[in-house]
Amino acid sequence: MDLDALISGAREGRPRAVARLISMVENGSPRLREITAALCADRPNRARIIGLTGSPGVGKSTSTGMLVQAFRKRGLRVGVLAVDPSSPFTGGALLGDRVRMQDHATDPEVFIRSMASRGHLGGLSWAAPQALRVLEAAGCEVILVETVGVGQAEVEIASMADSTIVLLAPGMGDGVQAAKAGILEIADVFVVNKADRDGAQTAIRELRNMIALVERDWKPPIVPTVAYRGEGGEDVVEALDKHLAYLQESGELERRRQARARDEIEAIALAALRSRFADLHGDRRLDALATRVRESGLDPYTAADELLAALG
Amino acid sequence: MDLDALISGAREGRPRAVARLISMVENGSPRLREITAALCADRPNRARIIGLTGSPGVGKSTSTGMLVQAFRKRGLRVGVLAVDPSSPFTGGALLGDRVRMQDHATDPEVFIRSMASRGHLGGLSWAAPQALRVLEAAGCEVILVETVGVGQAEVEIASMADSTIVLLAPGMGDGVQAAKAGILEIADVFVVNKADRDGAQTAIRELRNMIALVERDWKPPIVPTVAYRGEGGEDVVEALDKHLAYLQESGELERRRQARARDEIEAIALAALRSRFADLHGDRRLDALATRVRESGLDPYTAADELLAALG
Repeated sequence: MDLDALISGAREGRPRAVARLISMVENGSPRLREITAALCADRPNRARIIGLTGSPGVGKSTSTGMLVQAFRKRGLRVGVLAVDPSSPFTGGALLGDRVRMQDHATDPEVFIRSMASRGHLGGLSWAAPQALRVLEAAGCEVILVETVGVGQAEVEIASMADSTIVLLAPGMGDGVQAAKAGILEIADVFVVNKADRDGAQTAIRELRNMIALVERDWKPPIVPTVAYRGEGGEDVVEALDKHLAYLQESGELERRRQARARDEIEAIALAALRSRFADLHGDRRLDALATRVRESGLDPYTAADELLAALG
Repeated sequence: MDLDALISGAREGRPRAVARLISMVENGSPRLREITAALCADRPNRARIIGLTGSPGVGKSTSTGMLVQAFRKRGLRVGVLAVDPSSPFTGGALLGDRVRMQDHATDPEVFIRSMASRGHLGGLSWAAPQALRVLEAAGCEVILVETVGVGQAEVEIASMADSTIVLLAPGMGDGVQAAKAGILEIADVFVVNKADRDGAQTAIRELRNMIALVERDWKPPIVPTVAYRGEGGEDVVEALDKHLAYLQESGELERRRQARARDEIEAIALAALRSRFADLHGDRRLDALATRVRESGLDPYTAADELLAALG
């Protein structure tokens, strides 16, 4: 298969080429490095990356659909990367949820893609940066990264995005949950969806009280929405714009993007080291050191030093 | 504080010295390396290490207590390392459970110690090998490592132990759970505790059917016990003895211990590399590479190569 043709296709915004490249990246193609190099050399404009996270049932997909629409109204080309730790896009219960996004399925300026975060060490961090590069090459100006808010994922998404939206819904005990999961530190914009339901005002009030307690230069705004009726999408985009302005003025945007680049380089370097170690499993040096630890009173720290010296 | 005195104290089997050293190891003392080197140079006899794992509620602590008693009857000095991913020994709900072990609290030939597996990367593997060395230095001939069977922990315990006991109880849906968690591959001895309850025979039968399906040289025996009445302890020890004989005859004991030493060296070397990387966070080289990735079209793989070359 001709990689150059695929990459040209992606640059021209052809959905098949984009999809194919993301699949290659996601499946750890042997040509991953080559693909990444080509995408980087291209130096496309960096997209604005917006993370969206929340517990199951708060209305993530519907909200994502609403935001896509709001950004499209501004004439922007939009990418969606839906990262699900368990199910792929097309599988099982999620499918129903996704129907709303089909509204955009025929819009050539919208690229929607799901990725399974296969439980890799580092989860998202592995393939997602390259998938974002593919979408950037395809000319996306805004990319929404949607993920279920469980454990690690939120923190990872926040480290990858310029702005992170945390989605809540009334009556799910989300207030407590938010405080517990350290979400207050990572949310740049809170969206309380299903704001037409009982308890929405209470949820907003509780959230406001919690936010007041956190020491941050940026106080995350709380935006009520009713995503299934399309209410509040513009307000969310306005809140995101204010956050972007804050990021730019404070120099935080530069810092976040620089940190992201550092993290990515480190993650790749660590993965490379780990695979060198894996190669050593069949290596006699490690085996000899292990024997000396077991039989000659060598301590494992000194053995590790010797191993690293041998690797050097 | 005098490290030599502490280590001498541990060698003489003084509980306070043993406890203090394990605390130092567990808390990542700056003298960890020194302590480990001293313990290794000492070359104590290696203890027989027995892992014991199972879901909450199957009776792990009571079973551990019963096994301590059985080994004490044979005149062996016994160590217990209770690794709990959430609560320390003295905290909360576990305390009641632990009361039974107080039977041994005044026996100078029994050392009981709990460790919290603080969610370190690598969990158990971090401090547990050194804690085992401390107990070996104190002359323990058998060490029971008890852990709650959740996720990673079982696999880790199996990699650390000569023999692994998986504890089940009837009526907890453990059959299905066992198959799911890959427990069939790591169990060397199955113990069905609470064997006086309804469903015990069914559980044993189901388990036997599942074991029959697994391709392993060693077919793990199933031992019924009623730990709170002390019934079956001798049978478990006999099953463990048979497994030990199998390990010795097949050469598997050597292989397991060698693999354990290799894993430990690797884990320490990886941790050392990770901390070198952490140091780099403030380093200009990584920052310069990140800037080139962001601004000059350098790809992150090449950047990682350069970083590793600089580390070398």
